[in-house]
Amino acid sequence: MHITILKESEIRQCVALNPTSIAAVEEAFTALFQGKATTPIMSIPVPDHHGEMHVKSAYIQGFDSFAVKIASGFFDNPKRGLPSGSGLMLLFHSETGFPQAVLLDNGYLTHVRTGAAGAIAAKYLAREDIHTVGILGAGRQARFQLLALQQVRRFQRVLVYARDPEHVRAYIADMQAHLGGIPIEPAPDAETLVRQSDIVITTTPSTTPIVRAEWLHPGLHITAVGADNGYKQELYPEVLARADRRVCDLKTQVFRLGEHMFALKAGLLTENDPVDELGELTAGVKLGRTSPDEITVCDLTGVGIQDTAIALLAYRKAKEAGLGLVIGS
Amino acid sequence: MHITILKESEIRQCVALNPTSIAAVEEAFTALFQGKATTPIMSIPVPDHHGEMHVKSAYIQGFDSFAVKIASGFFDNPKRGLPSGSGLMLLFHSETGFPQAVLLDNGYLTHVRTGAAGAIAAKYLAREDIHTVGILGAGRQARFQLLALQQVRRFQRVLVYARDPEHVRAYIADMQAHLGGIPIEPAPDAETLVRQSDIVITTTPSTTPIVRAEWLHPGLHITAVGADNGYKQELYPEVLARADRRVCDLKTQVFRLGEHMFALKAGLLTENDPVDELGELTAGVKLGRTSPDEITVCDLTGVGIQDTAIALLAYRKAKEAGLGLVIGS
Repeated sequence: MHITILKESEIRQCVALNPTSIAAVEEAFTALFQGKATTPIMSIPVPDHHGEMHVKSAYIQGFDSFAVKIASGFFDNPKRGLPSGSGLMLLFHSETGFPQAVLLDNGYLTHVRTGAAGAIAAKYLAREDIHTVGILGAGRQARFQLLALQQVRRFQRVLVYARDPEHVRAYIADMQAHLGGIPIEPAPDAETLVRQSDIVITTTPSTTPIVRAEWLHPGLHITAVGADNGYKQELYPEVLARADRRVCDLKTQVFRLGEHMFALKAGLLTENDPVDELGELTAGVKLGRTSPDEITVCDLTGVGIQDTAIALLAYRKAKEAGLGLVIGS
Repeated sequence: MHITILKESEIRQCVALNPTSIAAVEEAFTALFQGKATTPIMSIPVPDHHGEMHVKSAYIQGFDSFAVKIASGFFDNPKRGLPSGSGLMLLFHSETGFPQAVLLDNGYLTHVRTGAAGAIAAKYLAREDIHTVGILGAGRQARFQLLALQQVRRFQRVLVYARDPEHVRAYIADMQAHLGGIPIEPAPDAETLVRQSDIVITTTPSTTPIVRAEWLHPGLHITAVGADNGYKQELYPEVLARADRRVCDLKTQVFRLGEHMFALKAGLLTENDPVDELGELTAGVKLGRTSPDEITVCDLTGVGIQDTAIALLAYRKAKEAGLGLVIGS
């Protein structure tokens, strides 16, 4: 039995937030909609250390391999100068169940596949002619989401808001180089950011809602990336109720873990209210945005099919490039 | 960030079925009973290839590290000359959630920790003076269970029964060398084996029950290892109903996945009927066997605390021995 070990530096050589990775994740969403995937998730609480682990996986029919992804969030790490998030992915052979590869990506591939889902949401749901982009949060995923959006839309201005102005300054300094002269500015507050933007991407770990329904305006698209565990929340439930169109990555999951869960709890939505899945858009059975004035919201919680798609892409590219350490049993 | 990769050959140098590994698993059961552990599990069905993955984990308060174990069962593998089971374990730092080690054990550590649980069950529940040991099944776990029992009981004779006489012959050939002259013989059928044995260990992947209540006799102890997924079953439900004493690894789990689940379904037990957990015996709050004539049954489904205990033991021993490949990020 042989297993390939890939390091983060090798994985970064193979996979970036580009049309290839977005297409791989899009294909996986289509398979999910077509009923070809099972997507179990599991959490391991580590309360003594203010941490939690999330395990996600998905076998997709017809795929040679499937991933098991283990991602961590340990919220005391930043006090020690360490990132709160980490993790790795494993690939297994679909035919035998044997381990195929260990991807020591330190969470990089999760950022790419989450960015890719954001790109897909924007591709189908944002207006074609967006002027201003608003990014709520200034962490790693805020960076990936902006790079992702660039793959599917042109825009003229970026606003960013986060509670810590130091983080905002660092974000602007980092991202400026990627924007080819497009101005990127701090917003004075979340309200100004939402009111002035054509697309808003929320990427915070907030556990109290930020975006209010009063701030919504015709033509706005919001992608909410932060809520994924049943207590993180970025949108007031009224935002979902007021949207003309609600889309998500996986209904059964957003009803339990995402922004939709809070709207259900608040009695502002029921499970019978219309919510489409990204896979319905990528499969072409539902339309994306249907008018320039629609208010659209996409609730992303992260699905194992994204991990399987991105891990398999990384593995194939690494093999093509002759990368990785092969260990015999 | 550094991560240690351990191969099966290195792991085998560090961990065997001996008093050290049994003590480590026993300590973990005590912690489980004391409420110091969370033990999530997850399954990934791969129906196209007649396979399934099982993910188990447990964070145990006060332990430096915790394991995530991924084990596979792909039942078409033997047709191709491959083992049906495989897998690996991962260790994570309890304080930061960072990956610490990848244990490429191909399922070896699962066999050891399952054997260790069997040893603990026999230590507390089998009679001191057992004469004949009956092993149902002739696979890898049948081997580990017999080695485990040797650590806690002396005996004079071993009977083995499995459907395939070829497997029985191979088992006897393999195990003879470990038994120091104690005779090991094929039993003509499961009934003879159970009737003639003082302890019976069932290790089959059977999905239809084998052991009948009529075969039970005073003083018998049965440890059932096979049922762990909600459809595997080795004991008729009447066996549990007729036992004087029922013990298990984890009540909430055996009620869903183990032999107890079938007895509940059959209406022969309720969730209020007495069932003790191994951790109550190892913690000393409940007695083991209380009379030579009791009929005792232990239902083992496998708990993540066993994986955490054994993976941590393997990692520590490997570090002491300077084994393993360290990869920087």
